[in-house]
Amino acid sequence: MKGYRMAIVGATGLVGQEFIKVLEQRSFPISAMRLLASDRSTGRKMRVNEQEIEVQETTSESFQDIEIALFSAGADISRHFSPIAAQSGAVVIDNSAAFRMFPEVPLVVPEVNPEDIKRHKGIIANPNCSTIQMVTALYPLHKVNPIKRIVVSTYQAVSGTGSAAIEELRAQVKQVLEGQTTVPHVYPHQIAFNLLPEIDVFLDNGYTKEEWKMVEETRKIMHAEGIAVSATCVRVPVLIGHSEAVNVEFSQPISPDEARDILVQAPGVKVLDDPAISLYPQAWAVAGTDDVCVGRIRRDASQQNSLVMWIVADNIRKGAALNAVQIAEEMVKRDWLHGREGIEEIGTTADSHGNPLR
Amino acid sequence: MKGYRMAIVGATGLVGQEFIKVLEQRSFPISAMRLLASDRSTGRKMRVNEQEIEVQETTSESFQDIEIALFSAGADISRHFSPIAAQSGAVVIDNSAAFRMFPEVPLVVPEVNPEDIKRHKGIIANPNCSTIQMVTALYPLHKVNPIKRIVVSTYQAVSGTGSAAIEELRAQVKQVLEGQTTVPHVYPHQIAFNLLPEIDVFLDNGYTKEEWKMVEETRKIMHAEGIAVSATCVRVPVLIGHSEAVNVEFSQPISPDEARDILVQAPGVKVLDDPAISLYPQAWAVAGTDDVCVGRIRRDASQQNSLVMWIVADNIRKGAALNAVQIAEEMVKRDWLHGREGIEEIGTTADSHGNPLR
Repeated sequence: MKGYRMAIVGATGLVGQEFIKVLEQRSFPISAMRLLASDRSTGRKMRVNEQEIEVQETTSESFQDIEIALFSAGADISRHFSPIAAQSGAVVIDNSAAFRMFPEVPLVVPEVNPEDIKRHKGIIANPNCSTIQMVTALYPLHKVNPIKRIVVSTYQAVSGTGSAAIEELRAQVKQVLEGQTTVPHVYPHQIAFNLLPEIDVFLDNGYTKEEWKMVEETRKIMHAEGIAVSATCVRVPVLIGHSEAVNVEFSQPISPDEARDILVQAPGVKVLDDPAISLYPQAWAVAGTDDVCVGRIRRDASQQNSLVMWIVADNIRKGAALNAVQIAEEMVKRDWLHGREGIEEIGTTADSHGNPLR
Repeated sequence: MKGYRMAIVGATGLVGQEFIKVLEQRSFPISAMRLLASDRSTGRKMRVNEQEIEVQETTSESFQDIEIALFSAGADISRHFSPIAAQSGAVVIDNSAAFRMFPEVPLVVPEVNPEDIKRHKGIIANPNCSTIQMVTALYPLHKVNPIKRIVVSTYQAVSGTGSAAIEELRAQVKQVLEGQTTVPHVYPHQIAFNLLPEIDVFLDNGYTKEEWKMVEETRKIMHAEGIAVSATCVRVPVLIGHSEAVNVEFSQPISPDEARDILVQAPGVKVLDDPAISLYPQAWAVAGTDDVCVGRIRRDASQQNSLVMWIVADNIRKGAALNAVQIAEEMVKRDWLHGREGIEEIGTTADSHGNPLR
């Protein structure tokens, strides 16, 4: 079996480390691995497939001979280095929001729109964590009974912010238990025993960017411009695992049993739904697993043709690293790695919201 | 000023203790206070207005000479002792779900339907905590622009379950930090760093009873049978303060500014809404305060005539003890304490869901 020459940008971060773990667990064929990070982490040693590799600083020369580069180092790093990597001949799978809404950049959840990978021009975007798990669960239903509107409230773990946020939650929880005052560093306010309805920056329309990603990315991934989405995104004092309360209006009547039957057979989805034994997806239990878990499926008693459900997934795995590796797998399996042209076009016809440039 | 002869049933519980605190803070006129609980707490001494009072076991004789009895000892105790108290001549303000949906029993949020107190027959019901804060915030808007549909996802603190749940969360959080395994006692699963979409028992329609209370109680309190409500109720690892992400569809167009203008003047409501400085209601900050706090008010981009907002209140105060004491205040202020007849009618014409008895 052929192995691929790979690079991971942001290798020392939470998602970067999970990239390595997922690649190993799924035996992704690797012939060479370059681990890249900021100069702060240069020289740090990490193990990949039993081999010790030294972390290097990310530079313009880092991507020579690289075939696949997985990025998770923030939007600024992606904006700067992804085009360089792509022009060097690598295919970038980028976990940041930098390129997601560019029309020339496929935004992919392999269970939903794998065919979009084919038209890449060197950069493929990995969607927002909350969006990935929602569309993985909803797309199989949408295929059968088109969705008209989604109202979603999220309960997002601190790991979505990174390892500093995990440390902040752990430290603050301890401080509260000991009766001490907490001082927030990562978040604008205390997160221990608290909730923050603020994820990413606020937009002029009163939504946060995180909420707006769920609107725009859902439509792009599902190729369904007409779906109306309203999201409220909330950070909760959970370490790993994003949860979502989702109200979905379909075009036609659908029963909870029909939905369960469809979801039981859907790729990447696990139905955990038996109220009689308090069985439903829980963040704590879902952490470290691959499936998007769905439960509490019931008829929305307030509206026709509507269901309510509870969707939970590991935000670091399916919400980030796993989905990116699945994109890489799909790409090499279908032989869509090479032959793409036009990296120089990215960002020249439309802005990052998909609006045409004047 | 006249003082009232009062009793508190469930005096040693979390809400019972808060009854005492709120009565003291608001200088409710008390001429005599009887503290009642189960026989486990008999003999325990508690202070009310500088006076030490011994807790007595609740019996059929406990309510002689009592004018106002505040109950918070669970639905079974209420079902048994509330009618006895009412027949002894007391007016019961009951925090349990036992009588809420009986047509003969007023279900009251003083900012919304104070007039309903007047028609009591000896029992007045205090609504569910999540419902109280939602209707307090939504009713002022509904009066101006009738609400058609509400989709709400809750983020409910463990104090809603009682003091044992607070101890369970604190103990489990410590165990997780120390790498130990947790064993759930109060909840079906671990609550530390986790979320449980199960509050109260499951109904046949897939909703929990807590979720269904939000449907039925909202309609009854607001006198708006036509409002469609869909709720998802989730227990979160927060000590005090329930939070709610609420999508509201109105009959007519309404802007966030109009809603803010109405809510700023609404009784019992505080608007905390300035994204530029990360100002929004937070459970941690709202704990211990009286107002229902509203923020994140924005146009629902997915639907006409709709707003989204974030509503937070102290579930032990406005969600329970404060609301009950406010009912008592309203009742004595308007002289609605005496003169009601017909306690024997309660439960004879309809069941607890308001359905006529056959």
